[in-house]
Amino acid sequence: MPSLPCADGPVLATVGRSGRVESWHRGAVAVWHDGAPWLAAGDAMAAVMCRSATKPLQALPFLESGAVDRFGFGAAQIALACGSHAGARPHVTGVTAMLARTALSAAALACGAHEPTDAATARQMVRVGASPSPLHHNCSGKHAAMLATAVHLAEPTEGYWRPEHPVQQRIRQALEDMTGCTLGPDALGIDGCSVPNWAMPLAGLARAFARLATGEGLAPERADTCRRVREACWAHPDLVAGQGHLVTLIMQHLPGQVLVKSGAEGVYCGAFADQGLGFALKIDDGAKRASEAAVVQLISCLHPAAQHLGPDPRLSNWRGLPVGEMRAGEALTSMLQRLR
Amino acid sequence: MPSLPCADGPVLATVGRSGRVESWHRGAVAVWHDGAPWLAAGDAMAAVMCRSATKPLQALPFLESGAVDRFGFGAAQIALACGSHAGARPHVTGVTAMLARTALSAAALACGAHEPTDAATARQMVRVGASPSPLHHNCSGKHAAMLATAVHLAEPTEGYWRPEHPVQQRIRQALEDMTGCTLGPDALGIDGCSVPNWAMPLAGLARAFARLATGEGLAPERADTCRRVREACWAHPDLVAGQGHLVTLIMQHLPGQVLVKSGAEGVYCGAFADQGLGFALKIDDGAKRASEAAVVQLISCLHPAAQHLGPDPRLSNWRGLPVGEMRAGEALTSMLQRLR
Repeated sequence: MPSLPCADGPVLATVGRSGRVESWHRGAVAVWHDGAPWLAAGDAMAAVMCRSATKPLQALPFLESGAVDRFGFGAAQIALACGSHAGARPHVTGVTAMLARTALSAAALACGAHEPTDAATARQMVRVGASPSPLHHNCSGKHAAMLATAVHLAEPTEGYWRPEHPVQQRIRQALEDMTGCTLGPDALGIDGCSVPNWAMPLAGLARAFARLATGEGLAPERADTCRRVREACWAHPDLVAGQGHLVTLIMQHLPGQVLVKSGAEGVYCGAFADQGLGFALKIDDGAKRASEAAVVQLISCLHPAAQHLGPDPRLSNWRGLPVGEMRAGEALTSMLQRLR
Repeated sequence: MPSLPCADGPVLATVGRSGRVESWHRGAVAVWHDGAPWLAAGDAMAAVMCRSATKPLQALPFLESGAVDRFGFGAAQIALACGSHAGARPHVTGVTAMLARTALSAAALACGAHEPTDAATARQMVRVGASPSPLHHNCSGKHAAMLATAVHLAEPTEGYWRPEHPVQQRIRQALEDMTGCTLGPDALGIDGCSVPNWAMPLAGLARAFARLATGEGLAPERADTCRRVREACWAHPDLVAGQGHLVTLIMQHLPGQVLVKSGAEGVYCGAFADQGLGFALKIDDGAKRASEAAVVQLISCLHPAAQHLGPDPRLSNWRGLPVGEMRAGEALTSMLQRLR
């Protein structure tokens, strides 16, 4: 049996019922500030599959290759490239248009298909008996951006998702530059949408997001690309996730201040632009309820109004009777007090 | 912040991606045999909110009060009383009929409502724009049994769900008798369906299920009631959960041999009738994927064919490419080797 990537992290969230802790979630958090690791709870150096949280970083070659400008793309398309979108109408039409601009269709997408996470869209599809297409897949914007990059550089679109394809190699290089990590073959994994996903330490991700939010320590061209990426996410937070999704809510409420991106298996990355802080967290057991509670707690530390953006921590049962609450773990609250 | 109920348990399941452990789940397991605690991984004595796993025990007064015989109920109704049903047609019509037999309707149910967990039924309801009723609630069979007991004993149906109601008091007594635990006010919690749920150690639950499966150490009347309960579950495994649900699949394949019941927040209880073994497990973070993997591993120890009943441990991505696998934790496999 493969060994665990690291020791268990501190408790980051607890689920209470009738005055007891019913279930609890451990994990790790890293915060980067002013060019150095600043705070950590748990192991900030263990390699973590960061999943979709890296999308804003994976989008850098989309701009730097010239593909965005070549095809007349703007902030909306950059946001879709950064997004784990909810598969609602604006997302599907947006990705369709991106593909069309590069003379491609949904048939070129290698992400697979799944139901939209937008509940209303999913229900409507059930009503009319429609099956999801790859356009509904939350990664289709990222894939459209990868395809556009290949088309722009006259590279084959065939196999654009394979690790050895130049599109993926450029992304790997961008990830290395931004995180300060070396991503060798042992760090290579496969994502849910079939493109490479890299195992990287939370400290590296926190560093990358600090730089994405501020441009600190970057060459001018990379700094400008980062500016375009973050401004796109802040201009179109609904395209980075979807109506009612936490990532969207946070950036709708705090544009220009907080950049944030989620990943499967309990990952969140982000940054506070004014303070030049980057952060990354991973829940050991992968639970989204815990990563959401932890990221809301973290952001609320510097932006108290954010507390109301997450799911209601007061838990109710099926008749609406209060049964308990979700709480941030003590390790998280102590660490975050240092942020104030 | 409330303290954790116990130290973290050993790793019971890991989620692998590309050769690494991406996420992992800890928890505890207790096995009871021949009148005594036999094996444990993790803390078998910490109090756990056992949730729906206790339903077969909660059903004992339904029979012992005479309600089952009074209303001409049989194995199907006992199974519904024990079930966390999927809200499909047989469940809804079955609960409706139980209520009607006692001159009640869905209006008497205090469980609240939620969508059926049976996917086809849920989709059909979306298609026709139907909202779920309390009949669809997975606990409605248990509630119908509680109501029938009150009606039979000429107790008020009003407030049958409150801890102080005689129906709930009798259930508490049955739980104490079967588990060997004393359930004072500090052990009282509220379930998702609003009735009491009691915090009990896994060792006590394992003991209760061993006795439920064998009648060992019980007075003749209680032993006979347990026989009726387990035979009902084995005769109607589809009513204890639903088509395709793990609890149903296990008992469809191993009737007379394995009794099993799941609970929210990663709980499973059960027993091996021939060996007189009872077991109970709880995943610290509450994840169902981990409790299912652990219970399948446990059952496969004595019934190897059960390995194929759980979800495929080989994990694939959205295009069907293999990405990794779920594995049982080493502590679980070592403990289970002692069972062979």
